[in-house]
Formats: sequence, C-alpha cells, structure tokens
Amino acid sequence: MPLVNIRLTRREKPTTREQKAALIAGVTQLMQDVLDKRRDSVVVIIDEVDPDNWGEGGDSVTVLRERRARQGQQQ
Amino acid sequence: MPLVNIRLTRREKPTTREQKAALIAGVTQLMQDVLDKRRDSVVVIIDEVDPDNWGEGGDSVTVLRERRARQGQQQ
Amino acid sequence: MPLVNIRLTRREKPTTREQKAALIAGVTQLMQDVLDKRRDSVVVIIDEVDPDNWGEGGDSVTVLRERRARQGQQQ
Amino acid sequence: MPLVNIRLTRREKPTTREQKAALIAGVTQLMQDVLDKRRDSVVVIIDEVDPDNWGEGGDSVTVLRERRARQGQQQ
Amino acid sequence: MPLVNIRLTRREKPTTREQKAALIAGVTQLMQDVLDKRRDSVVVIIDEVDPDNWGEGGDSVTVLRERRARQGQQQ
Amino acid sequence: MPLVNIRLTRREKPTTREQKAALIAGVTQLMQDVLDKRRDSVVVIIDEVDPDNWGEGGDSVTVLRERRARQGQQQ
Repeated sequence: MPLVNIRLTRREKPTTREQKAALIAGVTQLMQDVLDKRRDSVVVIIDEVDPDNWGEGGDSVTVLRERRARQGQQQ
Repeated sequence: MPLVNIRLTRREKPTTREQKAALIAGVTQLMQDVLDKRRDSVVVIIDEVDPDNWGEGGDSVTVLRERRARQGQQQ
Repeated sequence: MPLVNIRLTRREKPTTREQKAALIAGVTQLMQDVLDKRRDSVVVIIDEVDPDNWGEGGDSVTVLRERRARQGQQQ
Repeated sequence: MPLVNIRLTRREKPTTREQKAALIAGVTQLMQDVLDKRRDSVVVIIDEVDPDNWGEGGDSVTVLRERRARQGQQQ
Repeated sequence: MPLVNIRLTRREKPTTREQKAALIAGVTQLMQDVLDKRRDSVVVIIDEVDPDNWGEGGDSVTVLRERRARQGQQQ
Repeated sequence: MPLVNIRLTRREKPTTREQKAALIAGVTQLMQDVLDKRRDSVVVIIDEVDPDNWGEGGDSVTVLRERRARQGQQQ
C-alpha cells in the first residue's frame, strides 16, 4: 500500500477541489504504472501549510512572495 | 520515547474530545504493555485531514463517501 | 515548493533505481501539470519500510504476504 | 537539501509571525553552521497542533495545562 | 482510513517481530473500539530510529542511555 | 513539547555523531531561545535518506551529485 503525502503552501488562490482530485488521481496512476500497485491500495494525503509556517533559504514563503511581488517576478 | 502520530479524515460528526482522549490513553497504555515504556515518555499527535485532501484508490474521501451514501452502504 | 513523501513497503525484489527515478520524475511532472509548479521547486522523498513494520487490518505485511502466497493469490 | 519539520502545540497566545521567522532563520543558520549546507537549500515547515490533539503521558495537553494551572505551576 | 505512525528508538535488544505484531494489532483494535473504524481500513507504520539520531533535552538517546547506565538507573 | 524532525540525504562522508549532537543541541537551544520551551521538553529526530530516494527538480540526488561532479561544481 503506497502512502503518498503531498505538502503544499497555501496560496491566496486556494488549491481547488479539482486540482486536489487531479493530484490524487495522478499519483494513483503513477503507482500503478511504475510499481504495478493495485489502485485501491494507494493512499494520498495532501497537507496545506500556511506561508508563514514554511521557510526556504532562511525566510518564510510570505516574505519570499512579497519580495518576488515587489521585484515584479511572476509569482 | 515512543512518538505516535494518528492521521484521520475529518468527518461531518467531528472526532470528539473524549474520543481523542481515549486514543491518547489507549496508545499510551499499549506502549506500556507491549514495550514496557514509561507512560510519561509517550507522545501522541492526532492530525485531522479534510476529506478533499485524502485519497484512496484514486478518489478523494469526499467522493468515496458520496458514492457510498448513494449506494446506501453503511458509512 | 511542493514536498512529496512516498512510503512503500520493501519487497523481496527491491524497488529499483530506475523505478525510483520514474517516481521522482512522474511526481515532478504532475506538480507542474496540475499546479503549475517550477520543476526545480519540487522535492520527492521515498521511504522504504520493512514489511514487519507495516500493518494493515491488524496484521503485518509480512503475514499478509505469507497468507496470500498460501492462498496462491498473485502477490 | 535539509528538510526540517517543527511540530508545536497551539497556545492561547499564538506563536507570532516573528517567532516563526526566528525559528526558520535559526534552523537555516544551524544547517549552514553544522553541515555547511547552502542556505537556499534548507526547507523548514512548522505545524501547529491543537492541544486536544497532542498527548503526553496519557493525557492531552489541554488536560495537562489545566492541571498545571490549578497547581499554580508556571504554565 | 486511520493511518498510525509509531516512531521508536532502536534498542540494543531490538523490538521483536512479536512486539511489532502486538503494536499493529493493538492500534487496530483501538481504532475499532474508539472510532468504530473497519479493521481493514487501519494502516500502521513503525519507524525505528538510531539512538544517535534521536535527541531529548539537548542530548542524543545514546548519551542519555550511557548517563543512565552510569547512574545505575533502571534503563 | 516541540518535536523537530530533520531529514537529510546520506552523503559519501556520513554525518558524524558529533554533527548530529550539534544539531540536537542547536535545535534545543533555539526552542528555548525563541519559544521559551523547557529543554527537557524538546524532541529531535534525524532521518537520513538514501540519495536514490531523494529527488529535486525531477532527478534523484544521486544523479544531481554526479552531474555537479562532472561540472566540477563544488558539491
């Protein structure tokens, strides 16, 4: 039974139910294709994390997004 | 120090404080009985996950519950 | 930065390097396709767990596999 | 790429944005100092858990805090 | 589908297959008793961690065990 | 009780016992400094992951390291 945990930062535009369904379906298909696992044995859990609670390179994602927005970089 | 993490999908009828206390007490007792661990060394963490965020067999638990409800199966 | 953790039980025939590479590539592609994530932002971690250490329905996978083998079911 | 996950119980006085930033910065610095890791390779994720959902020694943190408060111990 | 992850430090006398089976059976029974979960829906994963890799109060479990052994305290 | 899980890829030159001790001590100190946590309440767990089992940007760390070595970049 493969167990797949996906951790994402929450965005202003939340991850939609359809996107979550696509992630669940895609991961399940991948386990079947690569490892020949039975579909009903695949469990996927998606965690959404507040951007204040996720850090990269010493800064929170909140700060990184603000910096990128200021720099006009495509978020 | 055994560390036990319990992950559950959120239900319409939320898991009650009493149920959580029973899970914490039960797991702690189990660690003591099976592994002879000191009670005060056992840590239990319960995560509750949105049914849209939990997938089994390629579908989210939200979809699975709706399907089961339609099929009149005892949830 | 999506973080994807895949947990698998170890099999007699170990998961090959190529299969792991295919899982990493497949998950990364899925994050790009579904969530428009930059490829270089996707982290995948694969954990392989001993079948004695993974339980389903009250039995370890070791026991489940032995039972299935006896019952001649395709493992 | 070191991945550091910090799990904390939620307090009445929530963990502030500044404290979270200090945790992210501190962990990143530690990875650089001890393991010579590039700062931009360090990912930190902070999970905040409801005190009903965290157990120690067989009781939830909610119960433990109430007990300590009664006993006048510095919470 | 409750997912229960048990993390333990490795001991000189390893956790036996029977102890692991008892943990898996006990947790599964607990989910059934407290949350009325179907047995076949309960997944248990046991991780065993090297004592050098587990720290409490600023010291590794290796150091703590050595200290306790010296102090003659029942480990 | 803060719980801190550090995940690292295994290197040819393994992370030493001293480095692990420094990570455990450093994280414990950080929890005390930033969150005023009691030292004896801080748990740190270090997981070391095989480079075949860790992917970034669609490739395993094994492949990334080989590529960097070829490119002569300081690993």
